[in-house]
Amino acid sequence: MGIDNRIGIGLMGLGVVGSGVAKALLEKAGQLTKQAGGTLVLEKVLVADIDKHRPVQMAPGLLTQDPRRILDSPNIGIVVELIGGEDPAAAYIESALKNGKHVVTANKDVMAKFGPELLQLADQNGVEILYEASVGGGIPLLLPLKQSLAANDISSIRAIINGTTNYILTKMSQDGLSFHIALREAQEEGYAEADPAKDVEGLDAAYKLAILATSAFQSTVRPSDIYCQGITRLGEADFLHARELGYEIKLLAIAKKTEGAIEARVHPVLIPADYLLAKVTGVFNAIQIEGDLVGQVLFYGKGAGSLPTASAVVADIIAVARSIRGPRPEPMPAGTVVQDMVPVKPIFDLVSPYYLRMNIADQPGVLAQIAHVLGDRSISIASVIQKRADPVTHSAEIVIMTHPAREQFMDDALAEMAKLSVVREICNFIRVEG
Amino acid sequence: MGIDNRIGIGLMGLGVVGSGVAKALLEKAGQLTKQAGGTLVLEKVLVADIDKHRPVQMAPGLLTQDPRRILDSPNIGIVVELIGGEDPAAAYIESALKNGKHVVTANKDVMAKFGPELLQLADQNGVEILYEASVGGGIPLLLPLKQSLAANDISSIRAIINGTTNYILTKMSQDGLSFHIALREAQEEGYAEADPAKDVEGLDAAYKLAILATSAFQSTVRPSDIYCQGITRLGEADFLHARELGYEIKLLAIAKKTEGAIEARVHPVLIPADYLLAKVTGVFNAIQIEGDLVGQVLFYGKGAGSLPTASAVVADIIAVARSIRGPRPEPMPAGTVVQDMVPVKPIFDLVSPYYLRMNIADQPGVLAQIAHVLGDRSISIASVIQKRADPVTHSAEIVIMTHPAREQFMDDALAEMAKLSVVREICNFIRVEG
Repeated sequence: MGIDNRIGIGLMGLGVVGSGVAKALLEKAGQLTKQAGGTLVLEKVLVADIDKHRPVQMAPGLLTQDPRRILDSPNIGIVVELIGGEDPAAAYIESALKNGKHVVTANKDVMAKFGPELLQLADQNGVEILYEASVGGGIPLLLPLKQSLAANDISSIRAIINGTTNYILTKMSQDGLSFHIALREAQEEGYAEADPAKDVEGLDAAYKLAILATSAFQSTVRPSDIYCQGITRLGEADFLHARELGYEIKLLAIAKKTEGAIEARVHPVLIPADYLLAKVTGVFNAIQIEGDLVGQVLFYGKGAGSLPTASAVVADIIAVARSIRGPRPEPMPAGTVVQDMVPVKPIFDLVSPYYLRMNIADQPGVLAQIAHVLGDRSISIASVIQKRADPVTHSAEIVIMTHPAREQFMDDALAEMAKLSVVREICNFIRVEG
Repeated sequence: MGIDNRIGIGLMGLGVVGSGVAKALLEKAGQLTKQAGGTLVLEKVLVADIDKHRPVQMAPGLLTQDPRRILDSPNIGIVVELIGGEDPAAAYIESALKNGKHVVTANKDVMAKFGPELLQLADQNGVEILYEASVGGGIPLLLPLKQSLAANDISSIRAIINGTTNYILTKMSQDGLSFHIALREAQEEGYAEADPAKDVEGLDAAYKLAILATSAFQSTVRPSDIYCQGITRLGEADFLHARELGYEIKLLAIAKKTEGAIEARVHPVLIPADYLLAKVTGVFNAIQIEGDLVGQVLFYGKGAGSLPTASAVVADIIAVARSIRGPRPEPMPAGTVVQDMVPVKPIFDLVSPYYLRMNIADQPGVLAQIAHVLGDRSISIASVIQKRADPVTHSAEIVIMTHPAREQFMDDALAEMAKLSVVREICNFIRVEG
């Protein structure tokens, strides 16, 4: 935009990611100009407080507290929104698109909730909105989905897209820590926030899954469509049993496209220990995508952090710059605007194998009663582990693995079993994947 | 190209990959038209024998034995070369580019040997040549490298890019098979050819590495620049020792960019067993790329096969079609033409830790003699494992792990040690990575 192949950039937000982007734009100017086919010029940077001390050196006059200096500037062709959160970021993005500016954003909240509408708005205004950094940090996902896998019908996504929970689960699995101790370690390491609810309840993963699923299936999947269960109920015993049965426990974000419906859910799963996804440890992310031609591919890397996220943001800036440097804007790549509307299945319709862990009375006939409740709902048992009873409490722990069953029936069975006097506690039930 | 947004495609070769591509083009016509923004029309298919029975149904008149019917056809805008091998494929590609036709190819031989020249030829003729399928089958690699990671300086590639050898090494490691038995199993499973030399000697991996490294570093890396050592000398004992030391043995293709030089080599390595690359088993491929912003990312999937490879070929066709459907051809994305010429280091200049396995005489002072030879060349020992001696032969097996040392000195030391009367055999030496 503008003369001399100058492409003006307005950066909104100079936090962790914004600083990384500003640093890359300033320090790698030569390389980026070559890549973008034009000079990327940082015109304005929106900050909350102009006088705050910052680690990134900025030319005087670059900073502003007034969003209109970016959104209305004729010198700015690309607005890079890195404020995060829904408000006021969503309004800024909308305003930028309406003003005919391309938008690059890392905002998962906005894209998960309003992605399809913003893509349409961009299309109407002949501009692009790119948001690779909103899922999986610097891991290439949305571009490969849209381009490299364009010939595929995507049938499933199975993803570890929350580093905090994967770190906690790794600690619980490898070091035998309880959830609370592992969480505290994650907080001490800076991997979990003081209020960890969004991560440990699976909400962060659900937002990212909404973006991935919408992109993969070309059909709107909202965060509110996604069944979401966190990791707070997992106990040390679950990890021990899982290992014994040949599984790992992971918080997976899962989306599948089946005949006429989409499945989208975030919850802990047992996955076979020899799957590559099961071997992804620590704060790393891994996203496995299955297509009819390509089979399974997996993308792995750091899902957060200043520089990895900046890597994706700057790549998007380069892609937009390439498309605007010619005499006409490149037409929207096909498939960026959501076309189909496939319904999202409620969790009750899920069909999955289950792992159940219960505390039962140590007396004859208990297993028969439990089997009866399950059998009545056409749930068949694949295997049972019963541990030695506790002579003091006269109770025993039992683990049941079922064959695939409908969640609704399983839910029913759990309610019924809870009423049995011989069942002391239903400690946990975990879906099995793969 | 052509009227009515028709994009004419000439397919050269109807073997394993060609059939997959033809199948996808014919069966997914609607979806691909949407993606490509134009109708992809299969105009002609070059085959060696027009009368051969084929599993893919083709309209009569589509097949030809005359390459000029494709290369000179005014109706064909994209030539898809899937013949494989250097001759006559290279000449066809060159002719297509000179005739102003875009080229999509899966040909690793041609792209490894002549990639930089063909990219330049394409640039001169205002067309594109895309070759995603030439490395890693359907795994997105070249597009993410060029676009998603465009803001990064790529510092290293570590890749398992030969499924045959990874299958053999997996069998040797997990089932304790010898190389020859594992190879026979791979041949029985259809994973290895009757003449497995190109795979087991590492040549196939070296060709793919040349393509990856040239693309990642924007500097010409030829197959002849790449040091190459296969897996035929690995013994069961190496796998046992590696495991004991906390490593796996993999055939890695490694390229690194250091100050003023590129390192490029294919050989077996010991890598720490907890690395994700170490956990990639069977015929799968995995490519780990490190950039200054993104850190380490890894891409995983099937590196061969009809449909996975077709996935990449068709994605390239769609990308080309998108760029030509507008009134002007999209300018070449920056970075597709190789710009720098960084020298490739000879293997003698490599600095690496080493694993040595030797058979030595079971008598006092042997280790001192060996340590002396190493120490004289500034090679320091990190650890030693000595197994119980064989009372019949009076010999013992010894494994030495060194700290990083210059290959030239290590080579020297090996020659010197081989002269020692107490050294019965230098069974193997393996570089350690990571």
